[in-house]
Amino acid sequence: MMTGEDYKASLRDGRRVFLAGRLLEDVTQEPLLKRSIDWTAENYDTYYEPGPDACGPYFFIPRSIDDLKSQQHRQLDWASPTRTTSTSLLMLLTAASRMRADHPVYADRIMAYFEKAKNADIRCIQTITDAKGNRSLSPSKQDDPDLYLRIVSRESDGVVIRGAKLHITGAPIDHDLIVMPTKRMKADEQDWSVACAVPVNDPGIKILATTFAPRAEFGAEYFPYSSTHNMSEGFIIFDDVFVPNERLFLAGEPEHSATFAHSLGLWERVGSVGHYARLGETLVGLAQLIAEANGLHRVPHIREKIADLINYATMIRAGLEAAIANATFTPEGWACPDELTTNAAKFFAAEQWSTMVRHLHDIAGGSVLTSPSLRDLENPETGEHVRKYMRTMAGVDAEYRMRIFHAIRDFTADTYGGWQSVTVLQGGGGLYAQRLVVEKHFNMDRAKQLALNVAGIVTDDVEAPDDVK
Amino acid sequence: MMTGEDYKASLRDGRRVFLAGRLLEDVTQEPLLKRSIDWTAENYDTYYEPGPDACGPYFFIPRSIDDLKSQQHRQLDWASPTRTTSTSLLMLLTAASRMRADHPVYADRIMAYFEKAKNADIRCIQTITDAKGNRSLSPSKQDDPDLYLRIVSRESDGVVIRGAKLHITGAPIDHDLIVMPTKRMKADEQDWSVACAVPVNDPGIKILATTFAPRAEFGAEYFPYSSTHNMSEGFIIFDDVFVPNERLFLAGEPEHSATFAHSLGLWERVGSVGHYARLGETLVGLAQLIAEANGLHRVPHIREKIADLINYATMIRAGLEAAIANATFTPEGWACPDELTTNAAKFFAAEQWSTMVRHLHDIAGGSVLTSPSLRDLENPETGEHVRKYMRTMAGVDAEYRMRIFHAIRDFTADTYGGWQSVTVLQGGGGLYAQRLVVEKHFNMDRAKQLALNVAGIVTDDVEAPDDVK
Amino acid sequence: MMTGEDYKASLRDGRRVFLAGRLLEDVTQEPLLKRSIDWTAENYDTYYEPGPDACGPYFFIPRSIDDLKSQQHRQLDWASPTRTTSTSLLMLLTAASRMRADHPVYADRIMAYFEKAKNADIRCIQTITDAKGNRSLSPSKQDDPDLYLRIVSRESDGVVIRGAKLHITGAPIDHDLIVMPTKRMKADEQDWSVACAVPVNDPGIKILATTFAPRAEFGAEYFPYSSTHNMSEGFIIFDDVFVPNERLFLAGEPEHSATFAHSLGLWERVGSVGHYARLGETLVGLAQLIAEANGLHRVPHIREKIADLINYATMIRAGLEAAIANATFTPEGWACPDELTTNAAKFFAAEQWSTMVRHLHDIAGGSVLTSPSLRDLENPETGEHVRKYMRTMAGVDAEYRMRIFHAIRDFTADTYGGWQSVTVLQGGGGLYAQRLVVEKHFNMDRAKQLALNVAGIVTDDVEAPDDVK
Amino acid sequence: MMTGEDYKASLRDGRRVFLAGRLLEDVTQEPLLKRSIDWTAENYDTYYEPGPDACGPYFFIPRSIDDLKSQQHRQLDWASPTRTTSTSLLMLLTAASRMRADHPVYADRIMAYFEKAKNADIRCIQTITDAKGNRSLSPSKQDDPDLYLRIVSRESDGVVIRGAKLHITGAPIDHDLIVMPTKRMKADEQDWSVACAVPVNDPGIKILATTFAPRAEFGAEYFPYSSTHNMSEGFIIFDDVFVPNERLFLAGEPEHSATFAHSLGLWERVGSVGHYARLGETLVGLAQLIAEANGLHRVPHIREKIADLINYATMIRAGLEAAIANATFTPEGWACPDELTTNAAKFFAAEQWSTMVRHLHDIAGGSVLTSPSLRDLENPETGEHVRKYMRTMAGVDAEYRMRIFHAIRDFTADTYGGWQSVTVLQGGGGLYAQRLVVEKHFNMDRAKQLALNVAGIVTDDVEAPDDVK
Repeated sequence: MMTGEDYKASLRDGRRVFLAGRLLEDVTQEPLLKRSIDWTAENYDTYYEPGPDACGPYFFIPRSIDDLKSQQHRQLDWASPTRTTSTSLLMLLTAASRMRADHPVYADRIMAYFEKAKNADIRCIQTITDAKGNRSLSPSKQDDPDLYLRIVSRESDGVVIRGAKLHITGAPIDHDLIVMPTKRMKADEQDWSVACAVPVNDPGIKILATTFAPRAEFGAEYFPYSSTHNMSEGFIIFDDVFVPNERLFLAGEPEHSATFAHSLGLWERVGSVGHYARLGETLVGLAQLIAEANGLHRVPHIREKIADLINYATMIRAGLEAAIANATFTPEGWACPDELTTNAAKFFAAEQWSTMVRHLHDIAGGSVLTSPSLRDLENPETGEHVRKYMRTMAGVDAEYRMRIFHAIRDFTADTYGGWQSVTVLQGGGGLYAQRLVVEKHFNMDRAKQLALNVAGIVTDDVEAPDDVK
Repeated sequence: MMTGEDYKASLRDGRRVFLAGRLLEDVTQEPLLKRSIDWTAENYDTYYEPGPDACGPYFFIPRSIDDLKSQQHRQLDWASPTRTTSTSLLMLLTAASRMRADHPVYADRIMAYFEKAKNADIRCIQTITDAKGNRSLSPSKQDDPDLYLRIVSRESDGVVIRGAKLHITGAPIDHDLIVMPTKRMKADEQDWSVACAVPVNDPGIKILATTFAPRAEFGAEYFPYSSTHNMSEGFIIFDDVFVPNERLFLAGEPEHSATFAHSLGLWERVGSVGHYARLGETLVGLAQLIAEANGLHRVPHIREKIADLINYATMIRAGLEAAIANATFTPEGWACPDELTTNAAKFFAAEQWSTMVRHLHDIAGGSVLTSPSLRDLENPETGEHVRKYMRTMAGVDAEYRMRIFHAIRDFTADTYGGWQSVTVLQGGGGLYAQRLVVEKHFNMDRAKQLALNVAGIVTDDVEAPDDVK
Repeated sequence: MMTGEDYKASLRDGRRVFLAGRLLEDVTQEPLLKRSIDWTAENYDTYYEPGPDACGPYFFIPRSIDDLKSQQHRQLDWASPTRTTSTSLLMLLTAASRMRADHPVYADRIMAYFEKAKNADIRCIQTITDAKGNRSLSPSKQDDPDLYLRIVSRESDGVVIRGAKLHITGAPIDHDLIVMPTKRMKADEQDWSVACAVPVNDPGIKILATTFAPRAEFGAEYFPYSSTHNMSEGFIIFDDVFVPNERLFLAGEPEHSATFAHSLGLWERVGSVGHYARLGETLVGLAQLIAEANGLHRVPHIREKIADLINYATMIRAGLEAAIANATFTPEGWACPDELTTNAAKFFAAEQWSTMVRHLHDIAGGSVLTSPSLRDLENPETGEHVRKYMRTMAGVDAEYRMRIFHAIRDFTADTYGGWQSVTVLQGGGGLYAQRLVVEKHFNMDRAKQLALNVAGIVTDDVEAPDDVK
Repeated sequence: MMTGEDYKASLRDGRRVFLAGRLLEDVTQEPLLKRSIDWTAENYDTYYEPGPDACGPYFFIPRSIDDLKSQQHRQLDWASPTRTTSTSLLMLLTAASRMRADHPVYADRIMAYFEKAKNADIRCIQTITDAKGNRSLSPSKQDDPDLYLRIVSRESDGVVIRGAKLHITGAPIDHDLIVMPTKRMKADEQDWSVACAVPVNDPGIKILATTFAPRAEFGAEYFPYSSTHNMSEGFIIFDDVFVPNERLFLAGEPEHSATFAHSLGLWERVGSVGHYARLGETLVGLAQLIAEANGLHRVPHIREKIADLINYATMIRAGLEAAIANATFTPEGWACPDELTTNAAKFFAAEQWSTMVRHLHDIAGGSVLTSPSLRDLENPETGEHVRKYMRTMAGVDAEYRMRIFHAIRDFTADTYGGWQSVTVLQGGGGLYAQRLVVEKHFNMDRAKQLALNVAGIVTDDVEAPDDVK
């Protein structure tokens, strides 16, 4: 296993990361990436154990409901590279399980890759979204065939790929990119049916980074959350990258082009649901703290909004718990959360998020935007006034209340808040895509029979849901 | 145990039930009550077993998560009197458990009453809502003290009560009324702090019945659901009813006035959640059947609405499953569903119901209202035209499609549909009351700590939810 | 002009109307149609004036903003046949205006028909919705070509049409059916591109009636609104009806097939918006009356819901007023409401209706369903109890409060309420159709320029909306 | 009148403005305030005319519906100080009109102040929100009486005031602060019943500024909107400020304490409604541009969301137009927009805003967050790749599309977007306050009569709305 310091050293590997037009000679020296690297390094240190057989829990394969439960909880505090290592590898394993009968070679390569990644203790990230060009046309119909990543040449020992992958959180500080098709390819779109692993420092890789990390002049007092919890995004260019066979997990089989995305959907969404349950609870906490600080927590319309936030958080958590309680198992004995419930909970969380943030802003009031800075407390000419007017009552001093206001702004109404809102919504592909996923997992036959009973057309008893004996 | 016939005979007991101003000499002869009595009688016959120790599953006390699960499923097909027997007795038992330390006499009386009801195989119904008068005033402040049911005199062997109880579903065909306070009483409101059991045929009881049962001229073809699934409501007058001590479960202790309502809330809401999960699935089925019959099921906006219905049904079911998976146990070893999740799911189902019905109507179109009658099929002058114009394609004939339209109208847009919408909303007391119930069961300390972490005020790890080790 | 009695006599004209499988020998003798006929007759009597030049205001053509305003207000109290006479003739006139350049013959026939209808003082109804069959196929692709009404033969003096028209409110008691295509037809669908006027008593016409009129056993005390405000719906069969040329307004020109539906949309929707503004205000009134009667009108969450109802009603009325204030004028000088605003307001009213009804139910409580009957007041054994327990405080007696509960049930939670909910939603074609209508009337160029300004791509000033000088 | 340069010079007047703990020696030299000052100076230059009688349109009093219309349109492009000059002075005039009968002295002082401000061509800003302390207590019950601004001493020629005013947009670059009570004061709260005008450079004034202006390192290419349209907020401390009598407009009359807030509400809200109508149209434009750039504008679910945005914008505009069309007039002949409609439209815009932004994000996709920087186009190593992968089809090049993405982020999902969301919501006081304002302007008697008609209790005709003859 690597320590945090080993990890930092490993990032000085020749990778070509650009930020706002600048090439970063050494990502570990870039102030805007620093905190995300430190956070990831902390995860390394937390789990570090010496010895060749040690491995972090992000390489763990759940085999029971309790495994799923504890894994979902554990990942909540992981930096993005730590979490995506788990997600992307579980995705690969699930895909391997689903492809094994048809393509044992791919399944075996995935198993071998998993072991290798685990032994090297590297960090991986799935890369799914292509440039996409004109979205009303399929990959092979674009005026530039590279708008979806594809195989441009095939050789005996591997393939060469070209294209771009977008919205790759943490990519600038990961080690391996797990490439996969963004959607089901058509029968003649073999070249776009490609999945593989590519090192970030491959000479053909360029990463255009963006980040919501606060700029240097601001301290943690103005961005209490995002100054310590930030991450970069990567726009990744694959400029004719050679992929050797042992890292090639799909190379021309359209019938399995969607297997990876479906497998990813499962693991990414359940992770999101766990994360959103906590987000929901955090919104409740922020709302309650500021309501109490303002003396408003017993006002009926405030209580109603807080109750709505509680209901929101509780329903997401119910979705997580039911998804885990109804887990299914692969032939290998690996536990997978229930897809229907996972998706419904993900959709619910995403659809309601903007309204829940509105509730929080409605409760908190305009000082979310206009609270003086904590630095105004330190200026002797203004400090006493701020202390006088930002306090509200015995037990609620100005600094405490200002910190809560800054936290609400940072978390929901500033750069990070905007990033979070779009991410909650777009993670998993926008509301339309999320909405429709449930169709294929729902027991429609049972629902139709219930309806036929109402219509008096069929009067047989309706079968019980699966979980009832 | 009683058979269905025994049950019918038992209803000819001198009870005074009025319907639209008429006294019903014999409730079993009233056409508008007939179907509800037959349905209840069918439940008797289903479970009948001879012998003194036999008892129906509506007297069953769940002691495990599996018990809760199967009980929730079983009750879905029960007529209201069967279901409320279970609910009201579990409510009494839960109240007994919570009062035992303070008032062992009441707890013992409840246990004895439970055994007696079980042995007699009677049907019971909780009665909670009072007349209430001016709702901005508490019971003791009303200009008529009887607007909340109360003890008007106390004697050595019992008490006399007076008042009214409203919205008592099935009361005209039950045996025993379980009386309880509708809310927490103030310290000086001892007389209104009363719980007891009263036979329906007590000379002081009068029941004003209403019902959504379809009138006789319509057959099942016009009301395919409500002609077979209907129930009466009772407005019950307690005109100085004497209650002997052994049937008195609270008689002057305001500190336990809310114990019964809280206990009832638990059992009634979890039953509702199970019922609404099925209702949600039924809406999905109706929407899918009519969309297919109209050739519209592949149209994107129709699919989106059906997906919304699926998500609705799935989230309610997730709420039910999580509530059961997180069950708690009383000192007696009785299993209780988790209150927080139960309430959140109940609120979610109630709040979204009207939008879900709107989706169904939006999908189905105007023929929900204007479909010809099935009788028009039989008239030779019109039958062929109806068959020609109400069919849509090979495999979808007119009669089938008309039946679906009539089912949607009956279930959601006619007398029963209106009753159902108000009941889904008001069961458990209106959205405001339902919303706030969650406050007292939510782990607010944990939410505050999450918020303090975001604000950088506290940086300790946040404890895991209870279910994660 | 005709009097109410003349009108009733005119309905005994050999028309073939069926109700639940029965042929009605004389529609004026049918109890379930009686009230709708009386209501229409009252409108005749209200406006009756002797003399050959007299005509009712339902034949009025608005030529100014004030004309539009007073016409919209006047029609609110008209029975459906009175209102649709105005709507369907304004639709025809608008279509004539739009077709005059291409097809002066049709325009002239419409003008002549309008005069004739006015002189005869008849009642007309637009018939638009076809049987439609498989909705994923266009008219000419159906397995039965009659699933959309069409010309089956052409002769020198007219054409023969066959098909069915659905959801025709008031048809059983109207005189003339104005037939028109339900949507834009394709270039080769000439036979389905037909508009004309057909007398209800044509031998080829059969009407299958349905109605939400309350059944006889109930008096006005149980259905206070729908017993006096009810109407029938007609499912109309055109069984090879000959239409003479002078009544033929389109017969084979697909390019004008949508002209009628667009013209109708304009007049039907603005009428709806005026009606919904009043409906919204009625919901406010019902909510406020019952809140006051229950002593709840000062409770914050009740006030919030009433405020939501007020905002709903006010925004619909704002839509109506803005649509009229921004009226456009045809070359003939006829005033037309603004299409964009009309449609937006119609959509808003329809989309929010179910939530507004939920608010009313949430405020009113369970007695909407379970209030005793007014007949229970008359029974000496129960009357005093009902008076005691259904009153709430000085000034709010039982009968008054019960009447409000019955009104809420009748208006929103019983047969009529279901009819109303589906009608508000489906009038104008379901939410999807209503939503998209606005696209073609919105000034998208201006919106794009505003967006390009935000993006800094274009920095020119954006033109003002039309109404600002 | 002043030119832009005169205005800038006028800001070097000794004012004490602090930003993040720093005192700004000269506000015109502060980069973060620069753009807001330039923008305001541009407004000066636009309207500058020489001569003593010249005055800008922000001192204009509307006297007709057309006046109101053009004024509402004109102010859309004004910088905040220009707009608030108009709003705050119209507020004062309206308050003068309402107080004239009771307090002619105050009315006269306001008229004189108005003339003086006009002649000096200064910029004014209303200051309303107090520090408020514990919001469950009224001003006189706070543990620190200064938590609501109050008179601390009275002298023959004026009063001394102390307190703080929050959320004062543009205050650092205005000339005069118009102080007014934030709400209705109780009968014994005379000291808190104070309204007056205070110069920003009064020695007792200190302003703690905050701003969403982008930091210097970013150019307009990353913040295309907020780099040119930004403004500062002021937290204003009144540290024992002496106010001479002629600038004192209320000084101890609680019965008129709410007159100012009500007058302000009227003018601020109608200005907001006009602004939100444009905001709504801007969201439509952004959504349509990005949908077209992505090739998605014909996809049904995208069209539906754009239609929702159109309906949103159209209903707000309808509210504005109806509010103006129903204007009322003061005894002085000044035109005021209709309060009911103004408030309903404001509430509608605020409540739906978060959902509309969600629609835009849902349509636009993840590149809102992760689009490369325009600077990446300039780096030769990355430029060609960005051009290749961010274009989508002929006619949609990378730079154009990236600019739209950056515009959407800046406008709705970054610092400015967060500021805008909270401002749309909180302007006018949060949803609860906004919701309830309509109660007092709605014609409840008419609504009750409509309801009594439905109940059959009253059968009289209902009066027409005011605007119908």
